[in-house]
Amino acid sequence: MAVKERMAQLAGKVAENAREIDEKSVRRLIGELDRAKSVFLCGAGRSGYVAKAFAMRLMHLGFNVYVVGETTTPAITDRDLLVAVTGSGETHTIVGMAEAAKKRKARVAAITSNPKSEIAEFSDSVVLIKGRLPGTREKDYLARQLKGGHEPLAPLGTLFELSSMVFFDSLVEELMVRKKRGEDYLKARHTQLE
Amino acid sequence: MAVKERMAQLAGKVAENAREIDEKSVRRLIGELDRAKSVFLCGAGRSGYVAKAFAMRLMHLGFNVYVVGETTTPAITDRDLLVAVTGSGETHTIVGMAEAAKKRKARVAAITSNPKSEIAEFSDSVVLIKGRLPGTREKDYLARQLKGGHEPLAPLGTLFELSSMVFFDSLVEELMVRKKRGEDYLKARHTQLE
Amino acid sequence: MAVKERMAQLAGKVAENAREIDEKSVRRLIGELDRAKSVFLCGAGRSGYVAKAFAMRLMHLGFNVYVVGETTTPAITDRDLLVAVTGSGETHTIVGMAEAAKKRKARVAAITSNPKSEIAEFSDSVVLIKGRLPGTREKDYLARQLKGGHEPLAPLGTLFELSSMVFFDSLVEELMVRKKRGEDYLKARHTQLE
Amino acid sequence: MAVKERMAQLAGKVAENAREIDEKSVRRLIGELDRAKSVFLCGAGRSGYVAKAFAMRLMHLGFNVYVVGETTTPAITDRDLLVAVTGSGETHTIVGMAEAAKKRKARVAAITSNPKSEIAEFSDSVVLIKGRLPGTREKDYLARQLKGGHEPLAPLGTLFELSSMVFFDSLVEELMVRKKRGEDYLKARHTQLE
Repeated sequence: MAVKERMAQLAGKVAENAREIDEKSVRRLIGELDRAKSVFLCGAGRSGYVAKAFAMRLMHLGFNVYVVGETTTPAITDRDLLVAVTGSGETHTIVGMAEAAKKRKARVAAITSNPKSEIAEFSDSVVLIKGRLPGTREKDYLARQLKGGHEPLAPLGTLFELSSMVFFDSLVEELMVRKKRGEDYLKARHTQLE
Repeated sequence: MAVKERMAQLAGKVAENAREIDEKSVRRLIGELDRAKSVFLCGAGRSGYVAKAFAMRLMHLGFNVYVVGETTTPAITDRDLLVAVTGSGETHTIVGMAEAAKKRKARVAAITSNPKSEIAEFSDSVVLIKGRLPGTREKDYLARQLKGGHEPLAPLGTLFELSSMVFFDSLVEELMVRKKRGEDYLKARHTQLE
Repeated sequence: MAVKERMAQLAGKVAENAREIDEKSVRRLIGELDRAKSVFLCGAGRSGYVAKAFAMRLMHLGFNVYVVGETTTPAITDRDLLVAVTGSGETHTIVGMAEAAKKRKARVAAITSNPKSEIAEFSDSVVLIKGRLPGTREKDYLARQLKGGHEPLAPLGTLFELSSMVFFDSLVEELMVRKKRGEDYLKARHTQLE
Repeated sequence: MAVKERMAQLAGKVAENAREIDEKSVRRLIGELDRAKSVFLCGAGRSGYVAKAFAMRLMHLGFNVYVVGETTTPAITDRDLLVAVTGSGETHTIVGMAEAAKKRKARVAAITSNPKSEIAEFSDSVVLIKGRLPGTREKDYLARQLKGGHEPLAPLGTLFELSSMVFFDSLVEELMVRKKRGEDYLKARHTQLE
């Protein structure tokens, strides 16, 4: 199969995942973002890069925003929001950060595929984003692929990560419209030093 | 417009961009990846996160791979490949790294929207990935959106970044099939410390 | 007091801390570094930067070395060594990483000020590096300083971090001599892309 | 030679470098830090970790501070200060960032060993911090060491990096005293999420 076909397939899976998003959960997340004095993002591995890509746009949009683990990120307070990105909902360091944030009485929003995860349980708001169907075995995937199957292989958290990235950029659009902040506004905040 | 509709729109744009990919350029990139002793990734800002997400999967796949600017990245040599991710093709630091790599006789592959950029000119292989149509004014986008238009706002490099992320994950699938390395292989290399 | 006097004071404190280092513990650490197939470094905040500065030099020296949390860091195995840098010995994420490494049967070396910390207990080797004297109250420091006192203020983990940085660079010298690898060897591995 | 002796030697070299600091240049830097609306730090490799360690303390002290290249770092403006840390004064990416900052009419402060470097020329203030004596050949170092010499090997930028780290922590002490901000103030800003 051509790589461009695989790419269209993956984009199609993201579009399918979009249909499953609960719009009410998105409104709750927007409310949390609006009420927070500062927004903190965290995620591990590729989910961490997705979290950072969103954090950068929030900065462009004029939010006070920090990434946990970066140099100048201050202490979180009870007026702040931590947005934790974890497909499994069970990444040790991320769950630990969310717990620490709760202890300091910050609000916590989880972006996860796993509604039954500990982090989904104790977060103040949760946006569920589908990853690969649970129980879908990788061997079956590879077997089908090798026979010319029409399912993306999308190993490990790939579908969650891509869907979350596109979800956050959709949220950025919504925030632009709500705050009437166009591209010029974002551009003025974009670093010029690199 | 609901955020989930915006998300489906963005995924649709990525699928459109997939159609424009030149499959021959992808084969050349795969050839470069296969021949390289080590692969180095670089990109600034959100393109940098996309580059890192790809680098992590190349590591999972068993490649010797490094991200420029990370702690334990060694000197590049004439048997190595630098993959530079830059939508504009003109990010100062990234072009500088590509030039330095060429001076050291490494191969350079560019992933860019801009076929006329300096980096596209001097790279050994180029995969063109569409971003927003050149000349599309942001003000028009916002105006249309506010009137209920059906174009994604997708500020700055958003469409390039999303399309590149999905492109790289499609390439990962292709490499899995070619190398007959299933998800178990990748999982065994995935960090367990976080 | 002039800043240069403060600087001499801090350097003096580091020299004092040097005297307290147990040379046998250093030999054990060198043994662990030599036997490891790959060395992994971890640390949070400023201790994390000290860990990264050491990791970079280990790479220059020809070690297989990774920083936990960076993009292309693979899974740790039972032939590898995790070096954890934590003054308090109780940083949540770092202790978690060390525990995960032990579970995977990797060796763990701790660099810490706290011999009674959990991480010191379960690590295979420990180098103790003094921080500020326990029980030394900050208020006293500031009070004495404001009166013209001659103690460095050195807030939080400063003395541990500076002493660890100098300790690691001393270890680098020792490794250069033992492996007969001069500056030219290191320079050849130093990145040229930035 | 024992590692602890090497450590005392290196600390001694840092103390020697302290004596060479021009206190007037430090006062100018403090003035620049005080007048800046936001302070931006940049440095490559190990100098970058030193820059980050200082940036973290400036945040603890209540400064608006950012590290170039981190996720939520905004555009620099004409009311801001860029502090560039580069021993050679000629690191390509760092000089490029300083030039870009000047173009945007920000102030630039250089911390460097090289008074004749381009960056020292065009910066608004410069603190010179000695590295290894120019012209000191590495081979001689190793030769002397192997013969039991009493000079630290301190490869590449080691002496500059250690001296800069201690210099910045001395500056932090001075800022604490000037702003009457004790350790409790810093501690309250220190992240609790890791």
